[in-house]
Amino acid sequence: MNELELVDRLRLMKGVSGIGDDCAVYRPKAGEDLLLKTDQLIEGVHFRKTMRPAMIGERALARALSDIAAAGGHPRCCLLALAFPRTKSERWILALFRGLLNLATTTGTVLVGGDVAHDDKVHCSVMVVGAVKRGKALTRAGARLGDHLYVSGKLGKPWDQKIEPRLALGRKLLGKATACIDLSDGLSLDLHRLCKESRAAAQLEHIPMVRGASLERALHGGEDYELLFTLPPHVKPPAGTTRIGTIVAGTAGAVWFAAKKLAPRGYDHFA
Amino acid sequence: MNELELVDRLRLMKGVSGIGDDCAVYRPKAGEDLLLKTDQLIEGVHFRKTMRPAMIGERALARALSDIAAAGGHPRCCLLALAFPRTKSERWILALFRGLLNLATTTGTVLVGGDVAHDDKVHCSVMVVGAVKRGKALTRAGARLGDHLYVSGKLGKPWDQKIEPRLALGRKLLGKATACIDLSDGLSLDLHRLCKESRAAAQLEHIPMVRGASLERALHGGEDYELLFTLPPHVKPPAGTTRIGTIVAGTAGAVWFAAKKLAPRGYDHFA
Repeated sequence: MNELELVDRLRLMKGVSGIGDDCAVYRPKAGEDLLLKTDQLIEGVHFRKTMRPAMIGERALARALSDIAAAGGHPRCCLLALAFPRTKSERWILALFRGLLNLATTTGTVLVGGDVAHDDKVHCSVMVVGAVKRGKALTRAGARLGDHLYVSGKLGKPWDQKIEPRLALGRKLLGKATACIDLSDGLSLDLHRLCKESRAAAQLEHIPMVRGASLERALHGGEDYELLFTLPPHVKPPAGTTRIGTIVAGTAGAVWFAAKKLAPRGYDHFA
Repeated sequence: MNELELVDRLRLMKGVSGIGDDCAVYRPKAGEDLLLKTDQLIEGVHFRKTMRPAMIGERALARALSDIAAAGGHPRCCLLALAFPRTKSERWILALFRGLLNLATTTGTVLVGGDVAHDDKVHCSVMVVGAVKRGKALTRAGARLGDHLYVSGKLGKPWDQKIEPRLALGRKLLGKATACIDLSDGLSLDLHRLCKESRAAAQLEHIPMVRGASLERALHGGEDYELLFTLPPHVKPPAGTTRIGTIVAGTAGAVWFAAKKLAPRGYDHFA
């Protein structure tokens, strides 16, 4: 199967539209801002060599959708830049696309373009376009002194777990949350980022953990893909979220836990 | 330099805006369609290991901009997904970004986001957003029987040559060209694609070649990054372009040259 044949096969698949031109054309709706995000998923770095292709495709999209969720957006379309070894079969390639497209169709995301190449290992970059009412995107920057700090779900999930992007929750937080970020690099690092952008500090009080997780993993693990957000004290939090602390005065980016300063030791892909 | 420090450094650089959040927010202008494109540049596949970092950054963006040119668009913003070995110095990393940002600023493209990771070789995926007047994007699909076929510049350029995306030419073709594609995989393959999408065939007559190029390279080489386009017979072509053939009746995608059918042997990254 060469590239021309792959494009022909993909065109027949559900969740694919407008591929096979130099660019995809996207018509924005009036009154909306677009959200842009790109994320990499590299064999041996972000996932095990043995991961099944459908899981790789799903995971590559899920990671980028988690960021759309954190901004409170609706996903609209995506592009996939995919490199893989020559030894991969046609079946393997199509399974990867099917994994991605299953999640795409359940979340309203259309695959509109991409690029394929051969390389010695699997490398996926997914680019997602989301949309949000003009001027309403959630950012990391608006947390205020006294805001309560919340997280969805429980933390400390093991490596290679299925990612369920918190899209519905993100949209519920629009107009309510003062700041929001997705937990993709661990609570300590992502909370540091939220606080730094908001020019504030945070006091952590309580960490909801998945059964069997260590505190170390709940604080610094990078596999949670939950939303971390702040609400003014009088705002009622959505169901399924837990208060974990408070925004306090202090050096921008500082995080306190159990009477100690917590270093941003979460997974830095680049450290 | 960790990821947090890199983001802080990049924020001070010209051509960078809005980075450091989960998503970049882009506000579309009324009456415009957006053009979306992603392209990969992989060490050892698309460029030599010895290529200087500024050249890698420039080339990664230039390849994606060439597609925006082919659609007749104005580039607006871009995102970079970058993986590189741990051994690369801070200087090397910043040089790569400077190379990309130099081309970004001269073309009006703003770097609004990205993702960085470590890997055993350099891998860049650039995602570009362009804009074009609503409904006016050039596509591969509109060539009609009797249209004249043109190409910008000369073909058969050597490997690793500087890419100059034909943005100004692409915009001049808006409302005039019936079909357009950029030559990134070689004339034989890209003309096949244009004809296939237009459900037509083409007769090649004359190939303008760079000094020293072989006919083989001019027909099948993948380093030209010129625009290939069709105009109705009565439309005067822009300066700097050469007529190379005619759209004719025949099997969709068929290309004829020197009384023989020309196989789409251009560079298929995936074959």
